[in-house]
Amino acid sequence: MTETNRIWTAALIVVGDEILSGRTQDKNIAQIATWLGVQGIRLREVRVVPDVTAAIVEAVNTLRARNDYLFTTGGIGPTHDDITVDAVAEALGVPVVVHPRARAILESHYATRGGLTEARLRMARVPEGADLIENRLSGAPGIRAGNVFLMAGVPSITAQMLDGLTGKLEGGLPLLSHTVGCWVAESEIADLLRETEASFAGVQIGSYPFFREGRTGANFVIRSTDATVLAACARSLGEALATLGREPFDGGI
Amino acid sequence: MTETNRIWTAALIVVGDEILSGRTQDKNIAQIATWLGVQGIRLREVRVVPDVTAAIVEAVNTLRARNDYLFTTGGIGPTHDDITVDAVAEALGVPVVVHPRARAILESHYATRGGLTEARLRMARVPEGADLIENRLSGAPGIRAGNVFLMAGVPSITAQMLDGLTGKLEGGLPLLSHTVGCWVAESEIADLLRETEASFAGVQIGSYPFFREGRTGANFVIRSTDATVLAACARSLGEALATLGREPFDGGI
Repeated sequence: MTETNRIWTAALIVVGDEILSGRTQDKNIAQIATWLGVQGIRLREVRVVPDVTAAIVEAVNTLRARNDYLFTTGGIGPTHDDITVDAVAEALGVPVVVHPRARAILESHYATRGGLTEARLRMARVPEGADLIENRLSGAPGIRAGNVFLMAGVPSITAQMLDGLTGKLEGGLPLLSHTVGCWVAESEIADLLRETEASFAGVQIGSYPFFREGRTGANFVIRSTDATVLAACARSLGEALATLGREPFDGGI
Repeated sequence: MTETNRIWTAALIVVGDEILSGRTQDKNIAQIATWLGVQGIRLREVRVVPDVTAAIVEAVNTLRARNDYLFTTGGIGPTHDDITVDAVAEALGVPVVVHPRARAILESHYATRGGLTEARLRMARVPEGADLIENRLSGAPGIRAGNVFLMAGVPSITAQMLDGLTGKLEGGLPLLSHTVGCWVAESEIADLLRETEASFAGVQIGSYPFFREGRTGANFVIRSTDATVLAACARSLGEALATLGREPFDGGI
């Protein structure tokens, strides 16, 4: 049996009071989703949970069991509200230990910045058995514990941690997408969309309406793992829209 | 027994392929979180799920049971990929019916826009027993089915639907917040933060570091339902930072 078409999946837990209050606009979902897509891994579910141990533990145990990979963002800093390491360790049923390499990295990073205090040493704590995801920006590393990847809450640091992981996770065929935009009400061409999707095996078409400059339009996002099928589907939809007098915009509006 | 301090909670389900692919940056989480805060309702959990009926049903049934209110965004339009109404009806164990008032609204809205086609009539479908959340912008109403509120995926339309709900949902005391910003590494003042939080009953302090202009700083977000306690805690933290030679910025950086 070939595994060529195996679909690799991931979930993401955003730890999360700051997002749930509405004060901060999350940036990590889109960033991690895009990065996973390039690795050939599909983000299947995201949960934003409060900074509450039981909520994190429940989400970790549900999502790590049903996905190849689980990412978390937030809660791995030096302050009292950083509880993600402890919660993930609890979910995995292992103790929290100080990782010697993380301690060495932090000692070096803080040598000229006031030294490694007890608070800073908190950032060397990992679930027992975990590996580090090194990060040039802040010194504090991300953590890999089994199939769980603990990332920072600050998007620029998470970007560095993702960079450190690039090419290291096994994935499958990337899900390619092509967007066709059009100044048309999606309700006018609902049948066309359904029929076009049904005519191309393995293709999904999402319809995303918008209102701009007082006009109604929509982007039709076509997805497939097969570049040839994707291009044929996009061409077919574009030609059908043009036939209706609705000139499509290749690449979306 | 007084219910004065009862905490009212909500959850949100974002339906979600477009967010999970990374192509679109979600805007509804922050918008709905902020709106709920003003109503005195706390957003406790968000799930972004794919456009898959079983995934929506599972999330709806878990989250509506453990929160006062459940919101969904996305998947209530006229096209084949709009499956949220059917999924919520399945979760609630009721059939999908055409709502007479929704049909009348759509007939009126589309009277000068090509008429009410079969695709457009899909937007009048609701779980049996549901009420409408009217929306001036697109004609298509949102839906209230028990404690589940179905909103649009397009943020500007969701904003209209929230406007239509303002003041209509029972809530409790709003969770107030005050931000103190400072050019300081959060790790330097971790003990101060913990001790300050412990000194003020019912207060939570979140610490959110950032890097700007080559400097390290953090915003400390203090939350409480009691405005007097909140102000006292903010003053205490600000004075302690000033004593350390780290001048705070009231309102954050």
